[in-house]
This record gives sequence, structure tokens and C-alpha cells, in this order.
Amino acid sequence: MLRSELFLQTPQLRVFLPFYYTLWADSVLTPSEIKVVHQLLRELDWVGIEERELLMEYLNPQNTPSPKELKAWKKEIQTLDLETTESLTDIGLALVKNHDAHASISEKNIQSFRAAELALGIVGKEAKYIFKEGHITITTAYHSDSRFDIPKMTEVLNGSQAEIIKKVKTIISDPTFSLREYESLGDQREQVLQWCQALAAQGFGAWAYPESVGGKNDMEGYFTIMETLSYHDLSTVIKFGVQFGLWGMSVYFLGTEKHHQKYLKDIGSLQLPGCFAMTETGHGSNVRGLETTATYDHQSKTFVIHTPNESARKEYIGNAALHGRMATVFAKLIINGEDYGVSAFVVPLRDEQGQLIKGVRIEDCGRKMGLNGVDNGVIYFDQVVIPKENMLDRFSLVNENGEFESPISSDNKRFFTMLGTLVGGRIGIPRSALSASKTGLTIAIRYGDSRKQFGPPGGEEVPILNYRMHQRRLIPPLASAFALHFGLRYLTKRFLEHTEEEAQEIEALAAGLKAYTTWYTTKTLQECREACGGKGYLSENRIDDLKNDTDVYTTFEGDNVVLMQLVAKNRLTEFKQEFSDMNMFTVLNYLANQTKISLTEKNPVITRSTDESHLLDMDFHLNAFRYRERAILVSAARRIKRHIDGGMDSFDAFNVVQHHLVNVGQAYIERIILESFQEAVKQTTDKPCQDTLTQLCQLFALHSIEKNRGWYLEQGYMEGVKTKAIRKMVNQLCWELRKDAVALTDAFDIPEACIYAPIAIRK
Amino acid sequence: MLRSELFLQTPQLRVFLPFYYTLWADSVLTPSEIKVVHQLLRELDWVGIEERELLMEYLNPQNTPSPKELKAWKKEIQTLDLETTESLTDIGLALVKNHDAHASISEKNIQSFRAAELALGIVGKEAKYIFKEGHITITTAYHSDSRFDIPKMTEVLNGSQAEIIKKVKTIISDPTFSLREYESLGDQREQVLQWCQALAAQGFGAWAYPESVGGKNDMEGYFTIMETLSYHDLSTVIKFGVQFGLWGMSVYFLGTEKHHQKYLKDIGSLQLPGCFAMTETGHGSNVRGLETTATYDHQSKTFVIHTPNESARKEYIGNAALHGRMATVFAKLIINGEDYGVSAFVVPLRDEQGQLIKGVRIEDCGRKMGLNGVDNGVIYFDQVVIPKENMLDRFSLVNENGEFESPISSDNKRFFTMLGTLVGGRIGIPRSALSASKTGLTIAIRYGDSRKQFGPPGGEEVPILNYRMHQRRLIPPLASAFALHFGLRYLTKRFLEHTEEEAQEIEALAAGLKAYTTWYTTKTLQECREACGGKGYLSENRIDDLKNDTDVYTTFEGDNVVLMQLVAKNRLTEFKQEFSDMNMFTVLNYLANQTKISLTEKNPVITRSTDESHLLDMDFHLNAFRYRERAILVSAARRIKRHIDGGMDSFDAFNVVQHHLVNVGQAYIERIILESFQEAVKQTTDKPCQDTLTQLCQLFALHSIEKNRGWYLEQGYMEGVKTKAIRKMVNQLCWELRKDAVALTDAFDIPEACIYAPIAIRK
Repeated sequence: MLRSELFLQTPQLRVFLPFYYTLWADSVLTPSEIKVVHQLLRELDWVGIEERELLMEYLNPQNTPSPKELKAWKKEIQTLDLETTESLTDIGLALVKNHDAHASISEKNIQSFRAAELALGIVGKEAKYIFKEGHITITTAYHSDSRFDIPKMTEVLNGSQAEIIKKVKTIISDPTFSLREYESLGDQREQVLQWCQALAAQGFGAWAYPESVGGKNDMEGYFTIMETLSYHDLSTVIKFGVQFGLWGMSVYFLGTEKHHQKYLKDIGSLQLPGCFAMTETGHGSNVRGLETTATYDHQSKTFVIHTPNESARKEYIGNAALHGRMATVFAKLIINGEDYGVSAFVVPLRDEQGQLIKGVRIEDCGRKMGLNGVDNGVIYFDQVVIPKENMLDRFSLVNENGEFESPISSDNKRFFTMLGTLVGGRIGIPRSALSASKTGLTIAIRYGDSRKQFGPPGGEEVPILNYRMHQRRLIPPLASAFALHFGLRYLTKRFLEHTEEEAQEIEALAAGLKAYTTWYTTKTLQECREACGGKGYLSENRIDDLKNDTDVYTTFEGDNVVLMQLVAKNRLTEFKQEFSDMNMFTVLNYLANQTKISLTEKNPVITRSTDESHLLDMDFHLNAFRYRERAILVSAARRIKRHIDGGMDSFDAFNVVQHHLVNVGQAYIERIILESFQEAVKQTTDKPCQDTLTQLCQLFALHSIEKNRGWYLEQGYMEGVKTKAIRKMVNQLCWELRKDAVALTDAFDIPEACIYAPIAIRK
Repeated sequence: MLRSELFLQTPQLRVFLPFYYTLWADSVLTPSEIKVVHQLLRELDWVGIEERELLMEYLNPQNTPSPKELKAWKKEIQTLDLETTESLTDIGLALVKNHDAHASISEKNIQSFRAAELALGIVGKEAKYIFKEGHITITTAYHSDSRFDIPKMTEVLNGSQAEIIKKVKTIISDPTFSLREYESLGDQREQVLQWCQALAAQGFGAWAYPESVGGKNDMEGYFTIMETLSYHDLSTVIKFGVQFGLWGMSVYFLGTEKHHQKYLKDIGSLQLPGCFAMTETGHGSNVRGLETTATYDHQSKTFVIHTPNESARKEYIGNAALHGRMATVFAKLIINGEDYGVSAFVVPLRDEQGQLIKGVRIEDCGRKMGLNGVDNGVIYFDQVVIPKENMLDRFSLVNENGEFESPISSDNKRFFTMLGTLVGGRIGIPRSALSASKTGLTIAIRYGDSRKQFGPPGGEEVPILNYRMHQRRLIPPLASAFALHFGLRYLTKRFLEHTEEEAQEIEALAAGLKAYTTWYTTKTLQECREACGGKGYLSENRIDDLKNDTDVYTTFEGDNVVLMQLVAKNRLTEFKQEFSDMNMFTVLNYLANQTKISLTEKNPVITRSTDESHLLDMDFHLNAFRYRERAILVSAARRIKRHIDGGMDSFDAFNVVQHHLVNVGQAYIERIILESFQEAVKQTTDKPCQDTLTQLCQLFALHSIEKNRGWYLEQGYMEGVKTKAIRKMVNQLCWELRKDAVALTDAFDIPEACIYAPIAIRK
């Protein structure tokens, strides 16, 4: 008997068809699967010996049904009405009935089929979708459906800055600002210079300067300009920042009235392009080690600026390779052979024709990973003479008698005060980084919402943003973007309002938020790139530039690891200052109390609570953040003290706990961010916006706790049952916020011209 | 009385000088510090009222000592022999004696000074370094000092492949292979083509092909070539892989003898450049959804290759934009209107003059984030007719009667079998990625060893690799590079020796190691970039290209997230196959037993053990990895089952646990890597090499456990005391291996010409 005749001869045998089709259509027929069918065959009393052998034969991998046979079976099954079938057995029985209305199979045998189906691991109600279309699942049906009004959310984000934001967006959406590919490094640098000139012509460059020199005296607006420009080209932002921020503000904050009047107007209008020449090849993070010298000659009332060796050349200096005509140069002031520490001087680099001044040598840094529109260069000074008045003399000066004078006696304090005035850069950079992240998220989330791939058998393909892993990649960073938005707004506010006493706190805040935000940006844009697959790799889709341009943000304006240690050390100082009287007994006593607090917080009901309302409770979040901030700081202090008490050099002791100190910084910054975000949520009056922001804030908090769950578990602050529940809640919040995700990125209100990427732009 | 006269008048007051200098030289004088000095003054009986007032005045921030005064104090202190002083008090007393040998201070008052010093938080024995040089600390003195013979370690790494490695290294070190900057996309692509031609001329292209077509029939050698070439330019590696791997091996493995004889010789010699045209705009990961059609016409015995819509165009196809003359095109085979699933066809793209064949349209993908030496293109087919023999007919063919035939009846199985033959790509890519990581690590570690920044007061600057955070950044990835080296060697061996039954296991292994390694590479090169600071951002230092070229490795040859799910599903299948009889009761019974096993392993002595020999015990590591692999798999299975039992569609159920499944894949791969590494350690006969490899293996294991400590704590497999001890041990291993780090990267034996970076190259 031919195999194909088998199913014709005995109508009941057709019940096997869906089973056999499914077994063979699957990529492999495993020995266990064969075993199940053998068992089934043994249980059926009505199958003849020859039939049984033929049915067995079908299971022999050496003797498979032909592709044609398989297709024929499928076609026959597809003629049935499968709507009401709930299993392969149902389908098989329907086939039998369809062929011969009188054929029947005993209930006992039907149970054997059902048991076999179960043993084969087939999910009955889905079986029909092997043969028919129309398989709708939760995952396939899910889609964007936001609950809030987008312009209202944009208002919440813009706050008081809506007007200047609109002004900047109008400019960068102008056709003359169209993003494009460049033919060469020269082409790109020229374009970026032109854009900077156009921005200066709008008055944006001088925005923060005094009105007397053509500015608006509006530092907050200046930060907003930097942030908004960062939706556009990042080379332009950095060149803008070098010119108007670093060069201009070093003259503004380190110089005095005579310098302001002489230079600021031309700097603000970009008539006088300049540089900020601090970093040297040998000394980047460790600015105090700078080796360039400024030697005073009292007879001629001049300084001689000099590069004593290769490692003292000024490196990576923006605007230096092509356009800079002057520079603020940081150098060691030498008077009569005495070293008075680092001061700043205005030094000419090029004349008005762009020719290098005698004694100045400049090399081009060449191609970089990104920011190629900025002309970075290396500068060497060979005994360049400048007049005495070129010293930026707010904090250190040479008096009429040729003696050093300063309102700040300590070299150390003077140095840090000087640097402190430049803290604005550490606010501008993270705000720029956040804008780049927002652009990347907008591109990746729009793409994830429209791109479909894979789906259930018999169902449609699914938008990839419906996949949980894709949500895990993009939704927590989206929540963090909102968190950082409010965190950076808080930092800006504190900076603008700060008193002298708060200076160190603000510096630590800025350093920490700079490091935290730029690391976030690097990580987020990497996720965005991968989330867009091959499309994300094409330069036309922008993530390339966003990623490469911002990559150096973790390094410049202070290396992030160095900054986080600065933050941690500041926190340790704060901690010292809490004691009215400072001696070791007090510290130890305090530490003992700290332990008691921990025990109170470690209420077993709380450490194990997986109650949804508790997990979503903002107070629980803030307490957990505060506990971590405090406990990790205390344990760092303890460890350092233990090492020093044990005879270790303090430099070594700080090195041993370096990893710990970075966590101290992180924990502090995360608490600040969460507080700012929670406060912003409270301030939001529009209910739907508030509800959405609440969920974003919860996700930010829980995702951070999840990330640090190892630490919380080690501390006994939470038990495993709770951290597992938190993980589940993070997944759930990602799933819920996925509906709002596109609208949330729309609320960033990034000009379509700046989104630029074909995979994401709306015409 | 002038303040400067104060210390002249009463010799004993000089004891204050080092205190006052230290207080003022520090950047801030805090209220607590002032309070301590006030307290001290109260305790001194010999200080007069006027003197006390003047001393108080010095603490007034409004009335600070002048910079000149501070300098004078320091100079005076520096005239002392500070060698034997152990505190500020000692220095102060020496000053007093120096000025007036007869002056003395009571022991009680001396104790007050010592108490004040303690309260100010000054570490006594370091006090002298505020004034003198020569402060040597553990951190400053630490340096490279390896314990093994570098060539011997290279031998261990090279194993049986030393000869071919040497051959490839000779070529890529040749001046004609010098790495350089490019003037344009065209320049770069032309250079890369020339390098591929030069490599083909050496016989490297055909290495894996049969001897009958000019090859060496040596697949292992082919992988080694890919890996070694990856020290050089990655565009060249990928173009090489597209030509000889994807294009050549698709003909080799999907075609039959007639195709081999017709094409392979010219492919191997690069006479016939070609493409691998699988991915479409609409379908990347989901290859089964491809829409390009190959419609058979029996009358003319031809196929018509056609792109039915925009989303069916072939995208990102390497070699397509410029050089490809033919392509293996994946298309749905249609016979008489019937769809027979995806098959592969050789389709001409350009004639010998490079003119496009009629019906073929190609667009250039343009600039990409990296790999710009590869000419990726988009291909459209407009009814392109090819002869019947161009079908690659190993797994599916059209017979003489115009009917479909296949040795594999199931469309599903045939499809996966076809793809399975191409698994080699998933071995070549991670091996290439690892080489790029090794280059990045070599650059960053050499730089970290030579670059100095910061140091203790009065001490030299410190090589940045001596900082613990820098070690944390670079040493665990260095250990992982060794781990992956042996893991990928294991994968290659298994692939070369595998039987048909093992095919699925090997596919999962390759998919998992591809995903794991390429994610590692992205992360590692990011750390290398940041670890080199601004220098790392300059293109001349190579990390730019390494990072950008490898960034797409996480996407191509299978998106990593998709691959890790494939691995997890394979693991779930394995798990099913462990049962001789498959029914739910057995599964449940098994799960119950699993719990028992866990309890046995969770011996409280072990969960809390912080004993060093236990923490470093390789068996402890492997058990922990195996436990995780098993437990995470079981819990994923449980969760899926619970959701399905609860009525959830299985597609949705798998989506809900997607994040979990990625961890299942990771845990499996990490166990494989650890086993391979431990085995390699055992096989190493040279004792010093073995000792170093042992430490690297311990670091790899403990760093992985540390990374997953949240999970281990949740499970109760470890307690907090143990995970803390593990963190400490990771720090310790990083510190110890830092000495060997440069030598370990030297053992990679990367040609200096390929290291290329000025910050790292040895002339």
C-alpha cells in the first residue's frame, strides 16, 4: 500500500494528519516525540498492523513525507472551519467527520490523542494557527496610545524658558541650518564656523555677558541656548561653547572690567575668535601640574609665555587649528624665579590676517572620533611676550612694584576659586548631552514603534517596541531623560542663585551631574544604535554622529572618574562638617548611631514587602535612595579610617576605596535627581501629564534600585522576594509606558529638521 | 604689633606655623577647623592676650595672611630636617628649637597640639610631605613586573595555529599594508579592495575551499586568518569575510559540485567578486519573512528574480555598491503559484566591465558609523532572468518535471538546515571582535602604564594604571579576553568536529558566543576609549576605528538579543530532552527535585564562606556558574509554563520572560567559557604561565559572580558577607594582575604596525 493511500482507506486515520503535519513542520523530530506517538499507537485498538507500520514509517527520519505530501495535508486541513477547534485532536476529529460523517473514534481513544498532544507540549488553543491566519495576541495588538496632551507636556519641560527655546528652534530649523554630509574636514569646519557666526549675529553668543558689552546678562538663557542648539549639530555646540563659554567666560570671570570692555563685545559677536588653552599633553585632569610658564619682567612690564618642553604644549585646544586669534592661556606665574602657581593670561595667536604670531606654533589635532567640525589644535609658545595688562587679574595680579598680590592668600584656594568660576561648563555639557540623548531616543523609539519583525504563527509581525527586551532597552533611559531634565534644571537653578558658602556644594553637584549625565548619554546612545539594528549603523540615521560627537563628553570638562571622586571627597567633607566638634570619638559615636538608624529602617515588614502600592510609593523610593547615599558614604569613611589607622598612607587608602568612592558620588547624584524629579511631579498641575510623569518617576526610581539590588540585598535593606517584585514592577512599568513612549519623545519637541534620520523623520 | 612680628617675639609661637600654613594652604578653612584652634588656644597657658587675639585674627577669612607670608613660612619650615618628624606638632617643636634652643613647651601643651592635630584630621606621619618632596607610597612605587615568559604565553595562545598566524602577521606588517587615513570613501574602498586582492594572492581567500578548486580544505585555518587579520584593518576583514566567507561559502555549502567547479576557484582568487544578498529592508532578523521572489518557468527552464516592493529590496549588502559581480540571492521559490519557501540562487549583478546587468538596480548605502572600506549597497531586482542551474540546489531543487524536490520535507527544517550551514560566520565574527578588543586593550594598558597623573603631596605623579578604578576598567576585560580566547577555541573545535545530531547545539553555542563576545567588545572598547581620555578620542590612536568598525558586530550575523533568545530556546529544548518520557508530571517532578538540589548546595557554611582559598577555588567557581545556569533555566521554564497554564498565548508568555531568557543564554555561555578556560589552564604545562592564567581565570569567574551578585543573593546561594568578600577579592586580583598587564597584552603578539597608535606603539 502506498503511504498516500493510507489516509484514504481508513477515514479515522485522518485524525493523525494534524499531528503528523505539526511534527514534521517543526524543524526537528526528536526521539521523545517519536516515543509519544509510539505510545499513542499502542493505545489505539482500531489501527491495523499494516497501518501501524506505515504510521511508524512516517516517523522514520530516513523516510520522510515529501514536501508535496506535507503541502497537501495542510491544504486539506485548511478547508475546514478551524474557528471552533481548540486542539490538534479537535482538528483531526473534524477532518475525520469531514471525510466520512459516520466515522467515529471512541472517547477513550480521543483521550489518548489529547494526552499525546499534552505530552508533545502543544498549546491546544493555538494549534489552529499552524494552519490559519488571524492569530491575535496581546503582543501583536499592543500599540502607541498616549494619555496626555503633548503640547502641555512640552510646556512642563520648557518651564520659564519657552521663549528662548522657540527662538533657537526657529533658527536651527531654517534651511541654512540643514544638516548634511561633508566632503572634507575643511568643508565641515567651515560650515560650523558659519553656523556659529549666524548664531552670534542673532545675539546668542553674548547672551550671558553684561548689557554694557552687548549681552543680555542672562546666564540661564545661555544654558538654554546650549541645550537647544544640541538638537542640531554638536560640533557647532562645542565650537559655540569654546568661543562664548570657555574663551569668553574666562575673560569675563577671571579678568576685570578693563578686559571686559576690551574683549567681550568682539568675542560675543565672533569678531574675535579665541581659545581656552588650559590642558597640556602632560597634564589634563591634574591641572595644577601645568608646566607652561609666564615669567614676569618688571623692567618691560611684560610676561614671557613659554612652553618649556613637549609635555607642556597645550593640547586639544578648540578653535586653535584654524580660527582662534587669541587664547586664555593657563600658565605658572614666575616672578623673580619664584613660582606663584597657575594664573591666566590673554595671549595672541594670530593677527587679523590669520597669520601666526611670532613664537606661536600650532599643529592640527586632525581627525577625531567625532566633533570634527571643531578645529582642535596643539599650541607651543616660544618666548611669546605679552604686556602686563594681559594678565587676567581678578584673583592674582602683579602690583606696581612688580610683586605678586592676591585677595586669596593660599595658592590652593586661589587655584580652586579660579577653576570654580568656570563651573558653568560642567552645566552646559550635561545639558547638551541630555539633548543628544533625547534626539537618539526619539529616533530609536519612533523606529521601534514602526519597525515590525517576527510574530506568532498565523499572526502579523509585531512592532519591535512591543518586545519586552526592546522596552527594557529604551523605556528606562526615556524615564531617565525626564529625571535628568529636572535634575539639571535643579542644578542650573542652584548655580544661578548660589552664595559663596555654597560654592563647593555647587561644584560637586555640577561635577557629579556632568559625570552621571554623560555616562548615561554614552550608554543610552549605544542602546539606541543597537535598537535600530543595521539602520542605526548608517550615518544617514544620525545615531552615528550623536554617539561619536558625545563620546568625549565623558572626558572633557573633567574626566568622569576623577569628577566622581571629587564629588565623593566633597561628600566626606560635608559629613565631617555635621559635627559641631570634630574628634574621632564623635565620628565613632556617630557611626554607631548610623547603625541604629539602619536597623530601624530595616523593618522586616518593609524589607519583604512586595505590595504594589508600597513598591510604587515615592516615599519608599526616596528613603531607599537616601539610605543608600548615607550608608555608602559612612562605609567609605569607615574603610578609609580603618586603613589609615592601620598605618596606610592616606593616598593609598583613598586609592584602595576608589571604586567605592565612585559609588558614593553616584548615590548622591541619584538622590538629587530623584528629589528634583519628585518635586517636578508635585509641581505639575495638569493631571494627565502628572500621571505620566509619576510613572516615569517610579520607573526611574525602581530601575535604579534594581540596578543596585546587589547592594540593597547585601545590606539587608531588602530581601530577595522584594527585589524580585521590583524587577517585575520595572517590567510592568516599561510595558505600560511603552504606550506613551512616542508621545513622550514628541513632547521633547525636537525640530523635525534636526531629527534628520530617514527612519524617524515625519515629513 | 604687626602680625609678622608675632612669631619673632615669642619663640614658642612658632609651633603654630605648620598648623597655620596647613590650614591656609588647604582650599577652605571650615568653621569646625576654626573651632579646633580656638579650643587649642584656650588650653595654652603661656599665650598672652594680645598674642591670642592676633592668632585668632589669622583665622578670620576676611583677614588672611598674604601669599608672601605663607611662602615665607613654608620656606622657614623647609630649612628644617623633616626626615624624623612624624606630625605637625613635631615640625612646630623643631621650629621652636631651631629658633631658640632654650625655648620649651610643656608636655601638657604638646598633648593639646597633638589632640588638635588629630581633631583636624591630619595624618601625622604624612604631615612633612606638605613641605618636602620624596613622598613614596605603595601606589606611587607600584609598577609593571611580570612573572612569566612572554613568548611562552604566546605559544599557549596560538596552540596549533602558530604557523598560519605567523604567515598572516608577516603580510599585515608589510609596508604595503600600512594603516593610514583616507582622503575619501572612494580612496578607502579602493585600498581595502587592494588589500583583499593581496590576501587572495597569498591563497588566504580559498583556504577553506576544497583542494580541487585551489584551496587547502582547512576551515580551522580560515578562522585563524580572519582572527589574525582583525589586528589590521576591520573593513578589510569584513570585505574578506563577505567575499570568501558569505559569498564563497554560500556557493560551497548551499550549492553542489557543479557550482563548486564553476565558481569557487574564481571566488577564492577574487577574480569573481560577489555578494551575499539575504537581508531585506523589511526583514533582517526574521529571514523567513523575505519577500523577494524566484519564480520558476518550466518552459524556458529559468527563474525570474524579482523585488515585489520597497521593503523587499536587499539592504546593507557588502560588495554590492561597487565591486560585486554576482550574488547569492535568497528568495521565495514560486512554482506554479505555489510558495516553496526560501531558497538561494546565484544571480549576476554586473558584467565583466562592471556595468550593471539589465533589471538590476543598486544604490550605495553611503557612509556608515564604521567599516567604510566596505561598499555596502541596496539591490533591487526587476524581473531578472537566470538559468535553472543557478539555483543552489543542495537542499532544494526543481526536478526535470518542473516539480519541487528536497531531501528535507519540512519547509521549516529545510530553512534552518540551510541557515545552519552558514554558522561559520557566527564563529568568524566573535573571533574578529576579540582581536579588536585585544588591540584596544593593548593600547589602553600600555598608555595606562606610561601615563602619569596626580600623586600624593610631595610625591611623584602616578601611572594611571596604578589607580584602582583604572584597574577595574581594564583588568577584568583583559581577563575576559583570555577567557573568550579559550571559549572561542572550544567553539571552533566543536564546530569542526560536530556530528549531525550536535548541529543545533553548535548553532546555539555559536549564536551565544557571537552575542556574548561582541557585546563584550563594544563595552571593552568603550572602556579603552575613556581610559585613554582625550588621546583616546583622536583618530590617530585607533580606538575610534576599532570601536566604530566593531559596533555593528552586535547586529550583523544576527542581532544579539534575537540570538540570545535562540540560545535560551535551545536550552529549554535540551531541558525537555532530558526526560525519557515527556509529560507534565515528569516536568513538575523534575522541578521539585531541582529545588532539593538547590537546598543541598545552599550549605550555610558555603553561603557565608569568605575563606580566601575557597573564594579562589576553581570548583567553587564552576559550581556557582553551573548552579546559575541550571536554576535560571528552570525558573524561566516555570514562568513560561505558569503563564501558559494561566491561559496566556505562548507567544505572549515568551515575550513576558524575554529579559529572563537573555539571562538564560548568558548564564549558559558564561559556564561554557569558564569550563574552556579552566581546561586550558589545566593543559598549560609551563608553570609561570599556568600561575598567571590561573589568576586570570579566577578573576574572570569572580568578576562574573560579582556582576550577578544580586541574583546569587536573591537565591540565597550566597550571603552578603560572601559577595562583599568576592568584591574585595576582585579588587585584589586586579591589583596583582596589573603587574602582568603589559606583558599579557604583549603575549597577544599584535604586530606593532597594527597597534599604530602613537600613544602605544613601540618603535
